[in-house]
Amino acid sequence: MGKMTPDTREQEGVLAGTPDWQPPVTGTGTFSRLPRCPEFGLGEVDLAILGIPWDGLVTYRPGARFGPQAIRQASIACRSYSQAMKVDVFKNLKSVDAGDVDVSIFDFEETFSRIETRVAELQQAGAAVVSIGGDHSVLLPILRATSAKHRQLTLIHIDAHTDTSDTGGNPPHHHGTCIRDAIEEGLIKGERIFQIGIRGSFGDAEYLAYGEQSGINLLDMHDFHDPARKAEFTARLRETAGEGPCYLTFDIDGVDPAFAPGTGTPVPGGLSSFEAIDFLYDLRGLNFVGGDVVEVAPVYDIETQITSLLAASIVLQIAALVAIGKPLSKS
Amino acid sequence: MGKMTPDTREQEGVLAGTPDWQPPVTGTGTFSRLPRCPEFGLGEVDLAILGIPWDGLVTYRPGARFGPQAIRQASIACRSYSQAMKVDVFKNLKSVDAGDVDVSIFDFEETFSRIETRVAELQQAGAAVVSIGGDHSVLLPILRATSAKHRQLTLIHIDAHTDTSDTGGNPPHHHGTCIRDAIEEGLIKGERIFQIGIRGSFGDAEYLAYGEQSGINLLDMHDFHDPARKAEFTARLRETAGEGPCYLTFDIDGVDPAFAPGTGTPVPGGLSSFEAIDFLYDLRGLNFVGGDVVEVAPVYDIETQITSLLAASIVLQIAALVAIGKPLSKS
Amino acid sequence: MGKMTPDTREQEGVLAGTPDWQPPVTGTGTFSRLPRCPEFGLGEVDLAILGIPWDGLVTYRPGARFGPQAIRQASIACRSYSQAMKVDVFKNLKSVDAGDVDVSIFDFEETFSRIETRVAELQQAGAAVVSIGGDHSVLLPILRATSAKHRQLTLIHIDAHTDTSDTGGNPPHHHGTCIRDAIEEGLIKGERIFQIGIRGSFGDAEYLAYGEQSGINLLDMHDFHDPARKAEFTARLRETAGEGPCYLTFDIDGVDPAFAPGTGTPVPGGLSSFEAIDFLYDLRGLNFVGGDVVEVAPVYDIETQITSLLAASIVLQIAALVAIGKPLSKS
Amino acid sequence: MGKMTPDTREQEGVLAGTPDWQPPVTGTGTFSRLPRCPEFGLGEVDLAILGIPWDGLVTYRPGARFGPQAIRQASIACRSYSQAMKVDVFKNLKSVDAGDVDVSIFDFEETFSRIETRVAELQQAGAAVVSIGGDHSVLLPILRATSAKHRQLTLIHIDAHTDTSDTGGNPPHHHGTCIRDAIEEGLIKGERIFQIGIRGSFGDAEYLAYGEQSGINLLDMHDFHDPARKAEFTARLRETAGEGPCYLTFDIDGVDPAFAPGTGTPVPGGLSSFEAIDFLYDLRGLNFVGGDVVEVAPVYDIETQITSLLAASIVLQIAALVAIGKPLSKS
Amino acid sequence: MGKMTPDTREQEGVLAGTPDWQPPVTGTGTFSRLPRCPEFGLGEVDLAILGIPWDGLVTYRPGARFGPQAIRQASIACRSYSQAMKVDVFKNLKSVDAGDVDVSIFDFEETFSRIETRVAELQQAGAAVVSIGGDHSVLLPILRATSAKHRQLTLIHIDAHTDTSDTGGNPPHHHGTCIRDAIEEGLIKGERIFQIGIRGSFGDAEYLAYGEQSGINLLDMHDFHDPARKAEFTARLRETAGEGPCYLTFDIDGVDPAFAPGTGTPVPGGLSSFEAIDFLYDLRGLNFVGGDVVEVAPVYDIETQITSLLAASIVLQIAALVAIGKPLSKS
Amino acid sequence: MGKMTPDTREQEGVLAGTPDWQPPVTGTGTFSRLPRCPEFGLGEVDLAILGIPWDGLVTYRPGARFGPQAIRQASIACRSYSQAMKVDVFKNLKSVDAGDVDVSIFDFEETFSRIETRVAELQQAGAAVVSIGGDHSVLLPILRATSAKHRQLTLIHIDAHTDTSDTGGNPPHHHGTCIRDAIEEGLIKGERIFQIGIRGSFGDAEYLAYGEQSGINLLDMHDFHDPARKAEFTARLRETAGEGPCYLTFDIDGVDPAFAPGTGTPVPGGLSSFEAIDFLYDLRGLNFVGGDVVEVAPVYDIETQITSLLAASIVLQIAALVAIGKPLSKS
Repeated sequence: MGKMTPDTREQEGVLAGTPDWQPPVTGTGTFSRLPRCPEFGLGEVDLAILGIPWDGLVTYRPGARFGPQAIRQASIACRSYSQAMKVDVFKNLKSVDAGDVDVSIFDFEETFSRIETRVAELQQAGAAVVSIGGDHSVLLPILRATSAKHRQLTLIHIDAHTDTSDTGGNPPHHHGTCIRDAIEEGLIKGERIFQIGIRGSFGDAEYLAYGEQSGINLLDMHDFHDPARKAEFTARLRETAGEGPCYLTFDIDGVDPAFAPGTGTPVPGGLSSFEAIDFLYDLRGLNFVGGDVVEVAPVYDIETQITSLLAASIVLQIAALVAIGKPLSKS
Repeated sequence: MGKMTPDTREQEGVLAGTPDWQPPVTGTGTFSRLPRCPEFGLGEVDLAILGIPWDGLVTYRPGARFGPQAIRQASIACRSYSQAMKVDVFKNLKSVDAGDVDVSIFDFEETFSRIETRVAELQQAGAAVVSIGGDHSVLLPILRATSAKHRQLTLIHIDAHTDTSDTGGNPPHHHGTCIRDAIEEGLIKGERIFQIGIRGSFGDAEYLAYGEQSGINLLDMHDFHDPARKAEFTARLRETAGEGPCYLTFDIDGVDPAFAPGTGTPVPGGLSSFEAIDFLYDLRGLNFVGGDVVEVAPVYDIETQITSLLAASIVLQIAALVAIGKPLSKS
Repeated sequence: MGKMTPDTREQEGVLAGTPDWQPPVTGTGTFSRLPRCPEFGLGEVDLAILGIPWDGLVTYRPGARFGPQAIRQASIACRSYSQAMKVDVFKNLKSVDAGDVDVSIFDFEETFSRIETRVAELQQAGAAVVSIGGDHSVLLPILRATSAKHRQLTLIHIDAHTDTSDTGGNPPHHHGTCIRDAIEEGLIKGERIFQIGIRGSFGDAEYLAYGEQSGINLLDMHDFHDPARKAEFTARLRETAGEGPCYLTFDIDGVDPAFAPGTGTPVPGGLSSFEAIDFLYDLRGLNFVGGDVVEVAPVYDIETQITSLLAASIVLQIAALVAIGKPLSKS
Repeated sequence: MGKMTPDTREQEGVLAGTPDWQPPVTGTGTFSRLPRCPEFGLGEVDLAILGIPWDGLVTYRPGARFGPQAIRQASIACRSYSQAMKVDVFKNLKSVDAGDVDVSIFDFEETFSRIETRVAELQQAGAAVVSIGGDHSVLLPILRATSAKHRQLTLIHIDAHTDTSDTGGNPPHHHGTCIRDAIEEGLIKGERIFQIGIRGSFGDAEYLAYGEQSGINLLDMHDFHDPARKAEFTARLRETAGEGPCYLTFDIDGVDPAFAPGTGTPVPGGLSSFEAIDFLYDLRGLNFVGGDVVEVAPVYDIETQITSLLAASIVLQIAALVAIGKPLSKS
Repeated sequence: MGKMTPDTREQEGVLAGTPDWQPPVTGTGTFSRLPRCPEFGLGEVDLAILGIPWDGLVTYRPGARFGPQAIRQASIACRSYSQAMKVDVFKNLKSVDAGDVDVSIFDFEETFSRIETRVAELQQAGAAVVSIGGDHSVLLPILRATSAKHRQLTLIHIDAHTDTSDTGGNPPHHHGTCIRDAIEEGLIKGERIFQIGIRGSFGDAEYLAYGEQSGINLLDMHDFHDPARKAEFTARLRETAGEGPCYLTFDIDGVDPAFAPGTGTPVPGGLSSFEAIDFLYDLRGLNFVGGDVVEVAPVYDIETQITSLLAASIVLQIAALVAIGKPLSKS
Repeated sequence: MGKMTPDTREQEGVLAGTPDWQPPVTGTGTFSRLPRCPEFGLGEVDLAILGIPWDGLVTYRPGARFGPQAIRQASIACRSYSQAMKVDVFKNLKSVDAGDVDVSIFDFEETFSRIETRVAELQQAGAAVVSIGGDHSVLLPILRATSAKHRQLTLIHIDAHTDTSDTGGNPPHHHGTCIRDAIEEGLIKGERIFQIGIRGSFGDAEYLAYGEQSGINLLDMHDFHDPARKAEFTARLRETAGEGPCYLTFDIDGVDPAFAPGTGTPVPGGLSSFEAIDFLYDLRGLNFVGGDVVEVAPVYDIETQITSLLAASIVLQIAALVAIGKPLSKS
């Protein structure tokens, strides 16, 4: 089989963006038609996209277990060069699709353990990991792995919710407790957390109070639209982060449901897609070591799949942020 | 069962109920799981949510008769504490779901009479009434009741349309004539009407001229985005209202169809959800005596029901405006 | 408040089907606008509709937690007189909507316990319970309660799947193990189980073999369309049941996805709606003590909600079967 | 341009047009690209398709006002030769699209009058009229016109509902009373009415009793699937009709919602599309003078618009029935 | 037939917007119920709306062939007076719907030739042509016709993509090459092209470089939100255009997919509907000789058809721009 | 990486159906999680699933280019053991997913050549090829390859359309000409073609006449429901086929649009899913050498993706037919 068919090309490790153009209708499903993981020795990889098909701790509308599949499907429209960031991502970062974490669908402890192991394994091999969720509870095991390797993480958290709830019992976690859990476990300090997009209504004002007491930095939607307050917030973020490691956790419901309807707990009044992307643009130069996009529930998306498409675009922008802060790939 | 949150109040006495947190998947259908009307003597109620399942005077795409049902369903995600308004609404206002007006689906006169009676009844008992429509023609009987109790109303009117059409005949009203009707009936003066969101195309420029001649205050979309003109408009509104009674009528099509697709006569170029909510935020402190959200036609909504969710959020914000201008509940 | 509004009429215990016609657009959400549970002493009730908003043991596509809500919404089109069964159900059975079981969304053991308790409580009070699910795992606690009261149950099981899988571990149950679980727990004998609608593909032929070894009676889709084999099967069923108690568990995926798309694990080649209803018609006269309709996942339904509508119709037919085998209500 | 196919007739004289085959993506909207009414003198027309965009008497879910538009759009896939009927309809019948009746959307009396006038006008000119609705209340004015011209009509009525309700007041009609209204007005005798597809549940068994007392012939769904009873029913129909005029009124909800979801009051357990078409096939040779397809509510249809497509196909089959009972067109 | 029915009124050349109001549910399909082309001698027409149902050169998701049909359907909500532009378009411009170009669906060369001929023909007769697409490849033949009549065109190009790709082979064009093609054919100079909305990711940075080298003026999304840069861009545009002819090509994907989901290659982060309309408002007074709206793929739109509605609104705004720069119609 | 993750297991050639159960939410996209092609030497493969993402010759509604992707996605619910056929397909046939043919999206000649080459290559290696389309024009190159290897093919053709149209020009083929093309090219004789599902309306009766003259065996829908005629047809088919090679081409629109809405040219009145599957059951024992499922256009499917799911099931049944007529796999 001398001639390369799409699948063999993909499998033989040809990076996306080759001159031999393929129509965006072929291929069997990696992110942006990246090569699959095992084709490289892990040591050569700069960036790994990792699916986490889990929604076992959702309180309201489930469906995020199908997020990875839908984001990969939409990502065929995501190409290598980011116009916003002005960088050719996959030329600068040797990238792979690392497949899905093998979740145990009814057992969060086993699943958390597998997520932590897999992320750590990829990070140890030198890859920045960008995860595609999955409900937001996956942040906890990701931070367990990431904070073990990268001390003094700064966390940028885009979300409609503070995720500082308290289950008060059994199980100890759900998808609205991950930030509180991470603080309580000592994985990250409140002062190093920066929240954008928070809005809506709460069952208990205590969730907001907890964040305040913990020192979390919060830019609410009213202030986000106030240029002076937004600039002050971003400056504080940059000062806090310095040259230290940054991690971006992007709950798609931080964006307004008009732009991201495909999610379980949408809240009106959020960021536009442009505002979200442009906010990331303002973070260029920070030392990003990883990130995630979570809470994409494709069954609630519209026909044209704009939520998955936005999620795929955010994955690319996170990768661009990683690339901008990095010398050219070793390979 | 010491603490009474809205969630547990509904279930009180129901065998299935428990004092604990309930997941947002149970319950049979009141707004935000508020208790139903008859459980309280009406005299104790501060706020009544009232459904009006009517779309008998729609000229284009019907379906708003199912608005109340859909808004209640979406409202399970609306909790008591408003982040934008910084008030715990249902702690401050003893609130009930007053059910639906018993419409006569082919007879607008009978229906208008029942709406007026029901609103008056609730208002006489001391409740601020927030209605969930229904097409915009319901504003006329609501204003008949409300202006009888509250003299010199100031009317804030968010809409894509001026609703100053003239049917020129039979029947005398449709859903695009309610503002003109209210002026013609002497229920409200043009100078006390403030319109936001108006845009699009008109069959006849006379509808706009009528508003101008009547003294209606209108902030069109171009000027809404001009901070100086918007500030001037809001100042004029506050000056006009003073400490007098204010009423907010919110036609969901004032919001752009990207944010509120589920409506009969969508018009591109409208408010974003954030802009709508933030505009209400600017009205804190005015003396709101009631309001409504109308023209939600769920069959035109998207799967994730963002229109109903936005409508439910607006209901909560109107209630918050009522709460902010009010001492703690008598109970 | 002399005059009865829809909500008060509903709450004051007026049976559905009164001459004072209400348009099917009002009301806040019980099944077919039945009165709510607490309005009657439980001893007077013949039939209780019980929601179980649970989908915590679904292996593929979740969403059945919203089944009860959607089925109730669709049930407004279900009126009291069944044309197929030729009986006026709610005239013959004093009926209530018993609300939802208060599930513990991440804890199947606690949830199973609450289901069993609630079903037993209603049955002890003399009511036949028709449950609206929820995923099929709820059958196990229902059978625990039902078989405790009614010995030697005959189980009619309509489904695409045999539900004789084995989780082989943790947790011990999922939504495809309920029949095997019930046999293993000794709640019912294989010979008293009659399965209709089974089809499609299986990961392991052992699941079918288990059923065969347990003596389960199975009419596959090919034989269902063979009049002689279908008649033989129905005759065997009637002979087995005799005058003993019968229970019908209706997994909506027994029906073809063209007729019931709103479900998590649809399988092509199933029963038509007519065939399902007509099969129930053939069961008239058996002594039905309860039933359920499960696996309705509304987010996968089409706009016109035919799955929920079919589910509501099946609930009515099960109630009709209960009514036919029963003297006129005591009240 | 010797040969005049329907496709080219519309474009005749239009600058954009060519005599060649046109892809089914062009054209601005007549049924099956038939010529518009005014291009012919009315005296030359054998068949007129007439739209009635009216849903002012719908009790539950409105939307049938957009039926004519959607059916015309779908009809581009309806070509002239019917495989089932084995006749080239538009070769045999000189056919036009007569446009829409100019309804008065809030005034049923004015609308009924305009429908009656327009149908009578077309019938006087010699055309068989096939109407595309609209809700079923339009049948009454159609029958007023039709029964005035054609005495002793036999009415074939396909529907889920008997349409023998009684509004008991104001207004005197709704979309579920048309058959009773026609009998009460003396337009048709019960014995000449043949109902197929009736099923589901009723608020009052009296509606069925009225039909029985009036002598209406009814084949319920159980008997429809019994070949002997179906044959007996069809034989009785043929005997009653003889060579007299027949009219077919086809409420799309006679068909099961799996096949026709786009309608306001769907009822599970109905005819399949094949069964409906094949039933019409059994009526070949009867003297059809007109017909209608009603209750198509496109907003409830699925993406692929199968309800409108089925409706368009039924229109073609009714036209084929007209054609089969008729000598070659005069032209 | 003395009295005018909707269809005859439409056909007899009555302009839209007559006092004799018709409900927006009747009529068989022209843009905003304009008269059809052949009713006027072409010499009397100021504005011609022309459909181009073509999507034969789409690389990703097809469906724009149904754009003209859907835009016409949505346009029934587009009335004559533009609130934004403050002009009564159809009073100022004698307007017709010129039907569809008779495309040859598998042959782009033949189709391009027919488009060019038809546009030229209408332009020669004095009409400004506003085309409704169709994929963006139709711009090439439109520019061939338009630049032949109007020398030194200024081209305003709203799009997410630069459309400066190069197929590198067979066929020589696709829907992403039209701007490069027009430059290469010498139809327009790069310096006279003004691009707004460009964003997202690219397979090859060369596409952007080509535009830069050709002198194309580009305002990217980041700069669009910078008032100073936007003002500078618009000033440059006005200076370049002067009193010379301007043409507006509006790819609907220039708008964000939240506002225009119904398109084949959506890109997050685009213009809002308001921003797009308000940008056109800034172009008042330029000498517009024509325009187009392309890439509307209705099957990807949401139920409420906001993409088609926006497209129809943009058509009206382009017509308003034509009207503003023009004396009152000759008729 | 000792432990096998889903992706590595898949890639390391583990057949589906291993005891180590994986939830159906992981994996990156082969048919039923089969291993990819290059992992085996081709000589060891019994069955190859081949995607053909092509819809370049569709006359009406495009979208079948995304068929392969959607069918693979739905196939995760297709497991190895077929209940209908009573065979464990992937235990009996060593099976791979051979990826997609690398189509040239605007060039049918190049694409046809690549299809023919790829199918021939796989067949030469000993694999039965089951293709997933793609529009029906792909049948021609598939038959070119298949009839070159297998002389005297018997073709079973399930479809709503006869596909015996004649383009009369340029290009020489479209998706409705493939059967006529194959006869004209001498690839197959009319007498060896058996058509099931044909129905609806035709632009020209000649298409049916061509089939008759060519000796094609056709069972129309009326006769399909006549047991005697159906039995006679199947007997004739078996007699014709004998022990010679059979090929099944399954246009999904042969099935009724209620069961398969996701297709470009749906026709009411078709086969049910059960009837289609049961018809295949009747073909057990014939010597099937390959097959295809075509015309799945996912954008027209409903949310629950029943069309793709049915298509995947049909692929499995075709594979089962191959397996039944074959000794146990060589491996």
